[in-house]
Amino acid sequence: MKIVIIGGDAAGMSAASEARRRAPHAEVVVLEATQDVSYGACGLPYKLADGAKMEDLVILTADRFRKERGIDVRLGHRAIRIDPVRHIVEGESDRGPFEVGYDKLLIATGAQAIRPPIDGVEELWGQGVFALKTLEDGRVWKRALASHPASVAILGGGYIGLEAAENLRERGMAVTILEALPVVAPFLTPAGQQRVLAEAAKHGVEVRTGSQVHRIQRRADGKIGVATAAGDLAVDVVLMAVGVRPNTEVVKGTAIALSVAGSIRVDEQLRTSEPDILAAGDVADAEHAVTGARVWIPLALRANRAGKLAGRHMTGETVKAPPVLGTAVFKFFGLEVARTGLRLEEAKAAGFDAVQAEVTSGTRAKYYPGGGKLLVSLVGDRATGRLLGGTMVGPESAAYRIDTLAAAIHARQTADQLYDMDLGYAPPYGPSWSPLLVAASQLSKELGGQGP
Amino acid sequence: MKIVIIGGDAAGMSAASEARRRAPHAEVVVLEATQDVSYGACGLPYKLADGAKMEDLVILTADRFRKERGIDVRLGHRAIRIDPVRHIVEGESDRGPFEVGYDKLLIATGAQAIRPPIDGVEELWGQGVFALKTLEDGRVWKRALASHPASVAILGGGYIGLEAAENLRERGMAVTILEALPVVAPFLTPAGQQRVLAEAAKHGVEVRTGSQVHRIQRRADGKIGVATAAGDLAVDVVLMAVGVRPNTEVVKGTAIALSVAGSIRVDEQLRTSEPDILAAGDVADAEHAVTGARVWIPLALRANRAGKLAGRHMTGETVKAPPVLGTAVFKFFGLEVARTGLRLEEAKAAGFDAVQAEVTSGTRAKYYPGGGKLLVSLVGDRATGRLLGGTMVGPESAAYRIDTLAAAIHARQTADQLYDMDLGYAPPYGPSWSPLLVAASQLSKELGGQGP
Repeated sequence: MKIVIIGGDAAGMSAASEARRRAPHAEVVVLEATQDVSYGACGLPYKLADGAKMEDLVILTADRFRKERGIDVRLGHRAIRIDPVRHIVEGESDRGPFEVGYDKLLIATGAQAIRPPIDGVEELWGQGVFALKTLEDGRVWKRALASHPASVAILGGGYIGLEAAENLRERGMAVTILEALPVVAPFLTPAGQQRVLAEAAKHGVEVRTGSQVHRIQRRADGKIGVATAAGDLAVDVVLMAVGVRPNTEVVKGTAIALSVAGSIRVDEQLRTSEPDILAAGDVADAEHAVTGARVWIPLALRANRAGKLAGRHMTGETVKAPPVLGTAVFKFFGLEVARTGLRLEEAKAAGFDAVQAEVTSGTRAKYYPGGGKLLVSLVGDRATGRLLGGTMVGPESAAYRIDTLAAAIHARQTADQLYDMDLGYAPPYGPSWSPLLVAASQLSKELGGQGP
Repeated sequence: MKIVIIGGDAAGMSAASEARRRAPHAEVVVLEATQDVSYGACGLPYKLADGAKMEDLVILTADRFRKERGIDVRLGHRAIRIDPVRHIVEGESDRGPFEVGYDKLLIATGAQAIRPPIDGVEELWGQGVFALKTLEDGRVWKRALASHPASVAILGGGYIGLEAAENLRERGMAVTILEALPVVAPFLTPAGQQRVLAEAAKHGVEVRTGSQVHRIQRRADGKIGVATAAGDLAVDVVLMAVGVRPNTEVVKGTAIALSVAGSIRVDEQLRTSEPDILAAGDVADAEHAVTGARVWIPLALRANRAGKLAGRHMTGETVKAPPVLGTAVFKFFGLEVARTGLRLEEAKAAGFDAVQAEVTSGTRAKYYPGGGKLLVSLVGDRATGRLLGGTMVGPESAAYRIDTLAAAIHARQTADQLYDMDLGYAPPYGPSWSPLLVAASQLSKELGGQGP
């Protein structure tokens, strides 16, 4: 039995470890194009901080995977082509081309930072214009930061752009976020987006929305000129954080079916359309827990989970990948930002008679010092009363409270059922009616009742 | 239509406000024995702090209830007897006896601090030995603290005892907790209790468990002597925090049926066994969400909720009080402590084939600074896989994460279903596998599977 895994990060190494645990006698080979496996990619923005070390993100080294887990990790091995008929992966390493045969193959190649077709980007890529997706990207950033650049333009106002903005700002850099959309954090409600903008302003991060960059070029003074319709910006470095896309180069030339956003289509057992070939993690699609539709939501937990299940499937077990909600949280200076499930527009597009309720509520009892206001938005379905999604933004508790909503959505609860839940309360942690219950009550009214 | 409510705190004023809102023309009378209505009793321990004001706990004054909500709040009116046949409440006020007729009557008299039958307690009650249950208790404490007592003995190591211990210790007082049971925080697992003890020690709070007090008396030097088998303790003040019991004096002489722990038995509509008489809040029982049994769990949220529903019922609406889980959280210095649902022993006593799993997990990503270890214990049913309860103790997130478990239990989810949930993750807020998922995986294994 020979298991081959292409890609050695979250999904790949989870799969390798699980396969090894379940099938001690199987041969488990991991082909990793870079020199890194198993690192906390979500921590990259935090390691931009002064004094923080990128290498601390390494969870387990290739050497330890080899010695402690008996996994044949092959670094610098780039898989180029799959031959599903001959059950062979072809590729290249430092020592030339290679071929590896497999009984079961897992594609866990993840996603890559998008290089937008902006004039000048290709020329300056790696020369002052950097992504922040891989550990190697992180190292490149640390080298760039060693010369103390004073200013940065961040293209993109999503999770990564905002997290990086905080950490670069904390170093004392002048930070400008350029977002082509009219809003940052597009998964939030307008009120939530306003809070993010206010937090950026409070911490001296300039945000230019609706800002389409049409050229990036090295100027005579050594700075990088970023040209937009609203005017030019001269900065020392540029972070490209406009999004990611699935790394599917290796399946070109095969009949492996693709899915949403160019991801690889998998079934409940993480199988692609080709026999004995699976895909998991950021390269693969998943089922949405609310709509049942295939979606592509690249997030760490589901990558780890899918990897683990793929590892089991490859050792002969029948598995069932659970559906995803896209629950995501991040920190932006003093704000916790969280989301789960469908946004109002997504819910409507999916055919729900969707309604949104939004409330603000204290994060502590009124008479307890500190805390602030939590903004909670819930989306529900008028036809069934069911909860479909929600977002939270506030100075504390949002990153955890979102899980309560996620649990309720997974369990197909209605707004009224959520409102009836006996949740915890103590003055340091909230008002006696939890912000989530206040929001559920409001949603229940919006859904057409008088409130529970 | 005349609605009379006995008791003007959480349940009583929630009922009064809701009844007024739903039936603008009804007469709504509140009979309150003390001079206070509508205050945050859960905040009492925090207002022991130097500089904090007890009066800040007042949510809305009697005067504002009268003027802004048209509720006839009668302070200093102690209800003594109910005549269900004549539909009359008899009582006493400063101006002598009174009688009030009602169409609908709500008993919302709450609970009172237990005065244990310890030799000397009655003599010193209010003279150095104090409870901390009512706002007036709080004022008495503030007066006692004005003379800067140096030491306090706290009888009872439950929520109130521990919360008060923190706040009195923060004032610089020598604090000794005397707990008759062999443990503090008996609702926690042994590992959780150990954490609480360690936190007490870290902050210089002495805890004596298994410590039965047999006499309390004023000594010649003015201090209060607290005598236990293990030796005497001399302190300046004593906090009696051994528990509470329902305030049911007013129903003596009626046929109103009692329930668990001497509480008043109510049905889903908050009705007692007598027509037109309801009960809500800490004086009444409730249905447990897991067992379906009647229970008495005096907590603020369910008091507010039951009061609100009783207010609706009295204005003619059909209501259904939701079952409770007893979800409770509190702060103890740098620890968040949380529980919900059944403890292992409770689950076994209720007939479940109950199993417990306990894990510790980081509250942040390993490479993210700060945080600590969260202890998570889950109880599940081997026969069905269902989640029955759990506890959490840790430096952060426990007070919120417990709600996710509560939601899963309310929705009758299994350990496997919880493990499959797509919860949030970012390095500042946890590892990619949430501590709750790690615990669910462990519980799944304990329940007899290989883990999901």
